[in-house]
Amino acid sequence: MKKSLATKIHRVVFVRHGESTWNKENRFTGWTDVQLTPNGIEEAKFAGQLLKQNGFQFDVAFTSVLTRAIMTYNNIATELGCHYIPVHKHWRLNERHYGALQGLNKAETAAKHGEEQVTLWRRSYDIPPPELTLEDERHPQHDPRYQGLPLDVLPKTESLKITVDRVLPYWYDSICPQVLQGKNVIVVAHGNSLRAIVKHLSQMSDKDIIKYNIPTACPLVYEFDETLKPIKNYYLLNEKELKERMEAVANQAKAKL
Amino acid sequence: MKKSLATKIHRVVFVRHGESTWNKENRFTGWTDVQLTPNGIEEAKFAGQLLKQNGFQFDVAFTSVLTRAIMTYNNIATELGCHYIPVHKHWRLNERHYGALQGLNKAETAAKHGEEQVTLWRRSYDIPPPELTLEDERHPQHDPRYQGLPLDVLPKTESLKITVDRVLPYWYDSICPQVLQGKNVIVVAHGNSLRAIVKHLSQMSDKDIIKYNIPTACPLVYEFDETLKPIKNYYLLNEKELKERMEAVANQAKAKL
Repeated sequence: MKKSLATKIHRVVFVRHGESTWNKENRFTGWTDVQLTPNGIEEAKFAGQLLKQNGFQFDVAFTSVLTRAIMTYNNIATELGCHYIPVHKHWRLNERHYGALQGLNKAETAAKHGEEQVTLWRRSYDIPPPELTLEDERHPQHDPRYQGLPLDVLPKTESLKITVDRVLPYWYDSICPQVLQGKNVIVVAHGNSLRAIVKHLSQMSDKDIIKYNIPTACPLVYEFDETLKPIKNYYLLNEKELKERMEAVANQAKAKL
Repeated sequence: MKKSLATKIHRVVFVRHGESTWNKENRFTGWTDVQLTPNGIEEAKFAGQLLKQNGFQFDVAFTSVLTRAIMTYNNIATELGCHYIPVHKHWRLNERHYGALQGLNKAETAAKHGEEQVTLWRRSYDIPPPELTLEDERHPQHDPRYQGLPLDVLPKTESLKITVDRVLPYWYDSICPQVLQGKNVIVVAHGNSLRAIVKHLSQMSDKDIIKYNIPTACPLVYEFDETLKPIKNYYLLNEKELKERMEAVANQAKAKL
C-alpha cells in the first residue's frame, strides 16, 4: 500500500480564474455565472502548464460554484492529468457579491449612482454597494445552485469585509483540515474571495488589501509550517511577467470605475 | 428558501463514456487511463444536448476515477450548465479490469493466448483473464489515484462477475441514498460497470448480460418507485439510432477478439 508523501512543509496553491466575458465587457460580475473567454481558457491552460513544469501535484481541489472558476480548474486538471482527484465546490469561495451593481458597466454605474459614490464603493473596505431586493432576479435565491441554503445567509450585496467574513469559515473548516492532513491543495476562486484569504494569511491591513491585485490564472503558492503559520509565498511567474499581469488587473479596475 | 422539487418518481440517468483512443485502436483498455478522441468529445456533447432537450436537470453526479468518464461528464455538464453540482468520483465505478490483457490489441491477444482461450474469456461471465503481477506497471498500486486503498482490494484482473461484485456496494451505499432523498442523479461510467448496475436493476441472467451492449454516450434512464424498485427504463434515442449505436459497439467487440 502506497501513501501520499507527507512533507513537513504544507503548501496551498491559489489560482484566480482566467478572463471571463464580463471582465472583457467591464461589467460588475460578482455572482453572475458568466463563461471564460477563449483567452481565459488559454490563461487557465498556461497556469496548468506552469504548475506541471514546477512539479506540482494535487490531492484535492476547491473551487467556488461559479462556472468560470470550475472551468479554470478543469483546464488546469487536464494539463496536470489529475481529473480523478476530489473537487469540492462551495458558495463561500464565490466572488464578492456586487449587489445592485451586478451587470452594470462603467458608464451605467456612473450614470446611475454618480462618480463620487462609485469611487467610495471602490476605495472602501467596508461600504457595500446598494442591496438587491428579494424580487430582483439577480438575487441568489432565484438560482438553483443556492437552493438548500437559508435565505438569511444569501448576500444581497457585499463589501470586501463581508466577503472576508463569509470566506474564512470555509478556509478554516474545510480547506485547513486537508492541508494539516498533508494533502496537496489547490484553490481556484476569484479576485475578492482570494483577497479574503490572502488578507488573513498575510495579515494585511484593510487599506493594503484594497490596493493588492491578484493577477488572473497565475498560481500563487503559500507555504506553511505544521501549525499552518505562513512561512513564505510566491507566484509561479517571473517578476516582469507578474508586474505586467498585476498592472493589467489594476487598469481593468480603473477602466471599470 | 427554495427546495429541490421532490417527485414521487425517482430517476437515474446512466451514460457510458464516449469513444476513447484505445476503443479506436481496439485495445483492451480496462483501468488504463486513456483520453477521449475528438469524436468521443462530440458524442459527450451530443449526450448533453439530448438531456437538455428532454428537460433533464441534475443535483449530483457520479463518475469513475478514469479521465474518459470524467471528461464525458464535464462535456455533458457544459451543455447543461450544471458545473456547480457535486461530482463524486470513485474507483468502484471504473471499467472492468482486464488483467494481463490490458494494452493488448486483437492480434497480440490471439498470438499470446490462442483464439480458443480468448473466446472463453470473451463469452464467459465469471472467467477472468490472467492476473497482473504486483510488479507489473499496469497493476493499480502503481497509480497515484489508488493510493490510500489497501492492496488486497485492488484488482489484478476481473471477470464481469467480479466487476458486478465491486460495483454494487457503491451503488447501494453512495448512489441509492441520494436517489431516495429525491435527488436527480447522473452516473457516467463504463461499458462493464454500467452492465453491472443494469444486470442488478433489470435482474438479467449471467448469460443475458454478456450479450447486452450499452451504446456509448447515450443517456439510459431508469425510473424507480419509492422503494427503488425499477418501473421502466429507456434510452434517449429513437430506435433506429439506438440500434445503429448498439451494433457499432457489438461489432467493436467482435473486431477486438
